[in-house]
Amino acid sequence: MTTATVNDCIQDCLECLRECEVCATACLTGEMSAMMAECVRLCHDCADLCDICARLMMRGSSVHQEACLACAKACELCAQECEKHSDHAVHCKTCAEACRQCAASCRAMAQAA
Amino acid sequence: MTTATVNDCIQDCLECLRECEVCATACLTGEMSAMMAECVRLCHDCADLCDICARLMMRGSSVHQEACLACAKACELCAQECEKHSDHAVHCKTCAEACRQCAASCRAMAQAA
Amino acid sequence: MTTATVNDCIQDCLECLRECEVCATACLTGEMSAMMAECVRLCHDCADLCDICARLMMRGSSVHQEACLACAKACELCAQECEKHSDHAVHCKTCAEACRQCAASCRAMAQAA
Amino acid sequence: MTTATVNDCIQDCLECLRECEVCATACLTGEMSAMMAECVRLCHDCADLCDICARLMMRGSSVHQEACLACAKACELCAQECEKHSDHAVHCKTCAEACRQCAASCRAMAQAA
Repeated sequence: MTTATVNDCIQDCLECLRECEVCATACLTGEMSAMMAECVRLCHDCADLCDICARLMMRGSSVHQEACLACAKACELCAQECEKHSDHAVHCKTCAEACRQCAASCRAMAQAA
Repeated sequence: MTTATVNDCIQDCLECLRECEVCATACLTGEMSAMMAECVRLCHDCADLCDICARLMMRGSSVHQEACLACAKACELCAQECEKHSDHAVHCKTCAEACRQCAASCRAMAQAA
Repeated sequence: MTTATVNDCIQDCLECLRECEVCATACLTGEMSAMMAECVRLCHDCADLCDICARLMMRGSSVHQEACLACAKACELCAQECEKHSDHAVHCKTCAEACRQCAASCRAMAQAA
Repeated sequence: MTTATVNDCIQDCLECLRECEVCATACLTGEMSAMMAECVRLCHDCADLCDICARLMMRGSSVHQEACLACAKACELCAQECEKHSDHAVHCKTCAEACRQCAASCRAMAQAA
């Protein structure tokens, strides 16, 4: 894989980390519902995995591909949930987009030779 | 400071980390209220600071005392919030106790010569 | 999977996290060699993955199995490296044992129905 | 404090996190010396604190100022060490600059009303 690809994936992870932190906080600040609770939970997991994933790539770790797989899964679950609320919550829409982008990027990274 | 003291503080941080993760999940699973949202937020922060604090002590870091101060503050805020719900939510009661213990331990560690 | 199994796996992750932090510090404190550098690198990665893995299990996350797979891989690589130094460095011996235990525990967790 | 200031501080933390990860890896890859070992240790601590600090600010945490103080201290220690090697190791020079920038940014954040 090229340095450019790795740098893009790091950037996608950091962007997704940020949107997940922002989305979780917004979900916790607004009117709470069972649906929003699931959103907070998934944002929390997704943020943690984006974070470790970005750091493993920054340091050129030999286990970044396995971490990318886990991160992609977390991103997909979080995107799915956030997309349910995208019509009425702009933070969920933005978060879902960042999750989709990061999931694709991490899946590609996990499969790179 | 003695090895025994450091080990105790690491243990208190890991115990508090765990109770905060459990409490945040429980708060997100039950009926959501504005009060519980604040609890989730403070549990997240507290868990993150207990985690980094324990790891810095495990590795004998030269900045563990500054981290202990930040951790103690997070523990105190989280304990204060959880104590409001201790009568009706047993996870908040357990979490508040772990936070108080960890706060005291981290304050002592931060002031050790 | 049973609560007992999850608790055991959390405990194995925390034990492995600690031994990796201790081993990395010891490797950095003693006489440095190219071989020890690889040990430090793998201990860092392994510690980070044990940490996130333990926390995802504590909070009952829906992506803990994917994280367990990544963690198991990191543990196996770290154990392999530490085993090369087990004869002359007791911290590597202890770390390798904790890594083998955690790898087995995380592989089982990843495959649990 | 303004949103602009917080965003700048988050950016400084993420930049410093990245340079610390890169510098630690480079120090571990080149010829190892006792001096480089200290560099790896301080980069590791600094990266961890920049990471948690950035995330607390992203989520609008009420304990970010205490974390910023701990982060500033870690950045200053890491900068001091990296500056010793700046003449012959370009990664240490780049890392020291990112640490100085992040330290200043975090100190300002810690004191903001």
